Amino acid sequence: MPTLGQNQYGKAETRVVRVVRDGAVHHIKDLSVSVALSGEMDAVHLSGSNANVLTTDTTKNTVYAFAKEHGIDTAEEFGIRLARHFVTGQESIHRARVRVEEYAWERIETAGSAQHSFVRRGQEVRTAQIGYDGECWEVISGLTGLTVLNTTDSEFWGYVKDRYTTLQEAHDRILATDVHARWRYGWSDDTRPMPDWDHGYGEARGHLLSAFAETYSLSLQQTLYQMGARVIERWPEIDEIRLSLPNNHHFLVDLEPFGLTNDNEVYFAADRPYGLIEATVLRDGVEPRIPTD
Amino acid sequence: MPTLGQNQYGKAETRVVRVVRDGAVHHIKDLSVSVALSGEMDAVHLSGSNANVLTTDTTKNTVYAFAKEHGIDTAEEFGIRLARHFVTGQESIHRARVRVEEYAWERIETAGSAQHSFVRRGQEVRTAQIGYDGECWEVISGLTGLTVLNTTDSEFWGYVKDRYTTLQEAHDRILATDVHARWRYGWSDDTRPMPDWDHGYGEARGHLLSAFAETYSLSLQQTLYQMGARVIERWPEIDEIRLSLPNNHHFLVDLEPFGLTNDNEVYFAADRPYGLIEATVLRDGVEPRIPTD
Amino acid sequence: MPTLGQNQYGKAETRVVRVVRDGAVHHIKDLSVSVALSGEMDAVHLSGSNANVLTTDTTKNTVYAFAKEHGIDTAEEFGIRLARHFVTGQESIHRARVRVEEYAWERIETAGSAQHSFVRRGQEVRTAQIGYDGECWEVISGLTGLTVLNTTDSEFWGYVKDRYTTLQEAHDRILATDVHARWRYGWSDDTRPMPDWDHGYGEARGHLLSAFAETYSLSLQQTLYQMGARVIERWPEIDEIRLSLPNNHHFLVDLEPFGLTNDNEVYFAADRPYGLIEATVLRDGVEPRIPTD
Amino acid sequence: MPTLGQNQYGKAETRVVRVVRDGAVHHIKDLSVSVALSGEMDAVHLSGSNANVLTTDTTKNTVYAFAKEHGIDTAEEFGIRLARHFVTGQESIHRARVRVEEYAWERIETAGSAQHSFVRRGQEVRTAQIGYDGECWEVISGLTGLTVLNTTDSEFWGYVKDRYTTLQEAHDRILATDVHARWRYGWSDDTRPMPDWDHGYGEARGHLLSAFAETYSLSLQQTLYQMGARVIERWPEIDEIRLSLPNNHHFLVDLEPFGLTNDNEVYFAADRPYGLIEATVLRDGVEPRIPTD
Repeated sequence: MPTLGQNQYGKAETRVVRVVRDGAVHHIKDLSVSVALSGEMDAVHLSGSNANVLTTDTTKNTVYAFAKEHGIDTAEEFGIRLARHFVTGQESIHRARVRVEEYAWERIETAGSAQHSFVRRGQEVRTAQIGYDGECWEVISGLTGLTVLNTTDSEFWGYVKDRYTTLQEAHDRILATDVHARWRYGWSDDTRPMPDWDHGYGEARGHLLSAFAETYSLSLQQTLYQMGARVIERWPEIDEIRLSLPNNHHFLVDLEPFGLTNDNEVYFAADRPYGLIEATVLRDGVEPRIPTD
Repeated sequence: MPTLGQNQYGKAETRVVRVVRDGAVHHIKDLSVSVALSGEMDAVHLSGSNANVLTTDTTKNTVYAFAKEHGIDTAEEFGIRLARHFVTGQESIHRARVRVEEYAWERIETAGSAQHSFVRRGQEVRTAQIGYDGECWEVISGLTGLTVLNTTDSEFWGYVKDRYTTLQEAHDRILATDVHARWRYGWSDDTRPMPDWDHGYGEARGHLLSAFAETYSLSLQQTLYQMGARVIERWPEIDEIRLSLPNNHHFLVDLEPFGLTNDNEVYFAADRPYGLIEATVLRDGVEPRIPTD
Repeated sequence: MPTLGQNQYGKAETRVVRVVRDGAVHHIKDLSVSVALSGEMDAVHLSGSNANVLTTDTTKNTVYAFAKEHGIDTAEEFGIRLARHFVTGQESIHRARVRVEEYAWERIETAGSAQHSFVRRGQEVRTAQIGYDGECWEVISGLTGLTVLNTTDSEFWGYVKDRYTTLQEAHDRILATDVHARWRYGWSDDTRPMPDWDHGYGEARGHLLSAFAETYSLSLQQTLYQMGARVIERWPEIDEIRLSLPNNHHFLVDLEPFGLTNDNEVYFAADRPYGLIEATVLRDGVEPRIPTD
Repeated sequence: MPTLGQNQYGKAETRVVRVVRDGAVHHIKDLSVSVALSGEMDAVHLSGSNANVLTTDTTKNTVYAFAKEHGIDTAEEFGIRLARHFVTGQESIHRARVRVEEYAWERIETAGSAQHSFVRRGQEVRTAQIGYDGECWEVISGLTGLTVLNTTDSEFWGYVKDRYTTLQEAHDRILATDVHARWRYGWSDDTRPMPDWDHGYGEARGHLLSAFAETYSLSLQQTLYQMGARVIERWPEIDEIRLSLPNNHHFLVDLEPFGLTNDNEVYFAADRPYGLIEATVLRDGVEPRIPTD
């Protein structure tokens, strides 16, 4: 009989919006929560016995109930609370992974004093992934969909030329990407105080943006390393960061047939194919744990 | 032989990024341009003769060349220039429609003096549609993807109850929508000065947001009308506006089974189905021209 | 006070799956239904009174209840039944438009006699739009997402050359498109028997495919007209058809830099920009009614 | 200085269409190819020196050139040829991973003898991932987007009930999912003959479908295991399979408020949230290698 290998299950993409009313001033948190549980699950796979199965419907209900009972402070804290509940509350469950996407809102300024109106901010999504096995925590926070572009200070030359190489070297090009970053906190031990997750997010995001903008780039790999290294160097609570950066190609349009010179002014923004540059940057001496695939 | 009816053709979604370098301070415009031409096109449909056809590849090239030759001031002005060129430059073409989507970028603040780094702002897209038949202009500007939410000041009751009605009346609910707005300018005559398109956009967007936030709502229809009416009343250059507002349902989660009270705190944000509310609001005495389908 | 123009509302994208059990042989219908109602709706827009409003929640319930009470024979018949109900059942509602998307399933062949297992067929979606004002019916059926490709028998030359033209003439190219078709039936009068909607769908789809494949094409416009004309000529119950055909460009890759000849063998399938060709074809003497925008 | 960890780069989603003309009978292959290379890449990350970098543009060119030079027999064979070229052709590159998506087309039947017209088949996409380090091959084939549904022979009961459980037990429910499967071949050694990749694909796909249809299901986990086990048992060349199965919930609509009984006839197909069930099934004694995240 074939062997059952790694397995996990849970409810994905439970969208919960939590409102807090502080008089006329309202606050909202808007999350999509995905839970994956694993443990003593041989029976359900092999015979269909659900005796060890906490249903995905129950994990969904738990998300909603916890939003009420405990509120939602940060995505990380909320995920930690959920993961602890699943692992400690149910003997058959040995490991929980909670993934959270958070959508940001900002206030609409109005004439009156009311403060209950919001507009979605940006396309950027804040992410958090919490892993817990009953002993150790692994918190990987991040962001996705942060689209950035430099109009200059980017070159690309000196690369390998083989039989299939036709690319012209560039000494002034647009460099653009959608930042997908995941950073892992050193914190893993329940007995030590948690990091300030919101502050960490602001630090990481800020360093990513400024390193992207301030690096004179000879390759997207170099920019990537600078972005990752700046986060590691400037924020001691983060041990590891993985960046996945599509090269959003902006090709100079050939205007010569029309008797025009294109002096780095008019670009065609291509969709596909695109370069894809991925790397992990680590604090010295730290073992990598963020998946690379 | 079957009759050929309305027809049009052109290149869709030409993505052009235009950079202007003002010393170390760079500016960018990022547009997706779709051209649709019509005119004496019987032959190409009936016999395949392309003698009257300006190819879609040429319309694409024209977009790029014009970005160089004339720059891109606003989406509207750029579209007007293109439409005029196609209709007046080619005898067989009698009508042009140019649609533009514009993606907004804001500067990344950096330590140095360089100003060539940008981050995409918001999910909201600015739109413009220019129609020209050689005599009259029709400019329909707009926006899409502006997601807004009120946590209170929304009720819904007093509606028709028939055999299939189960909805409970609500006296305090979340009201949320993705604003899709198109507004038509009164300007249509080449001999008169054009409106200030950027200013008009800011006015319309601002009034839509503030009317959404400031309306105490008894139905999404009422909010819609207030949003449209405010634009018409406050901005004399706009004659007509059409709003298409999905009702992004946020359902109160039933927490009673868990012994909890949900005092308008925890909501499930649903995807589908959704209500869809659409209407046109017009300046008194004006004929509607924005398509309703 | 600004005037309220055309308006409509309803529930969009109600997904209903209807199962019929004929012993061990099961049948399924899988629809997404969108309802738009209009009528005496001034009050709800101007003052927020919902007294004339049949809620979108009720229209959703009606879709589900009708699936049980009347079953789902075809998308068209189901839409007609719903539209009649809304217009005749509620005095304040004067017009209903029901749009349906239908997703096709086919049986999974199994060893046993059970016939309750299905696999989704194709990416193609069948569509139907029913309009009713209490007197006349307008039924526009169609399909979307039917992706087709000819590897030869397509040329493109003899077109206008202007200052911005660089395209090389082609005497043997790939022609590829995603067919989006909407056809309107002549049937509009309740006292006459309805067409056989399923048969009409099969006829229209079949003629579109065979005309695409059998036309030696000098332009996508010519192919479009042949596709539309064949449906009109071969199926008397259809009076009008509108086709929207993106030109899914397949560009020959330049292999000369690698010392290779590309004899119409290797193509790059581009995403954007793309040509977009749209036209209506009509039975002689018929007024067009399918929206062109 | 922070350490550079795992890194890779390459061109993603190069779409290549290859036509073979066998007289009037044409054949097509339609692939999207993503290349990821790794090796001696410290310099490019740390100093921006591209001396070891084979550009992503070159990897794209290589895909096109190989399509001409060697043709495309199967996705797997094409990927193997590319991976071998990158690793053996460039000293600085130590490992290549090639991912392929293949889109299926079938012939349009026509009246004449011509056979150059095609229509896209299904939403299902065939996948292949080839890994090569200069010594060992790892071939993980698969499919995604295979949507299946059983209208009966599915139960769900006997699960854990905790404080947050409200789900009613079900003794006859719809079971529906989108199959995402990846299977790893035992073949890894260049000196042994390759498997017949097309045949393997047909076998795996067929067994997945029939196991889904023929399993009387007490949980989606049980169905998943049966699907995976059947592939392993029936096809000796496959050592490991990982399945990721969303539970596409079809909820019975409550029709009681309308005086109707819903005898497993009318369902609401929900989008989100959804259950997500994932597991690996292995040939006895085999080490798992397919990533689980």
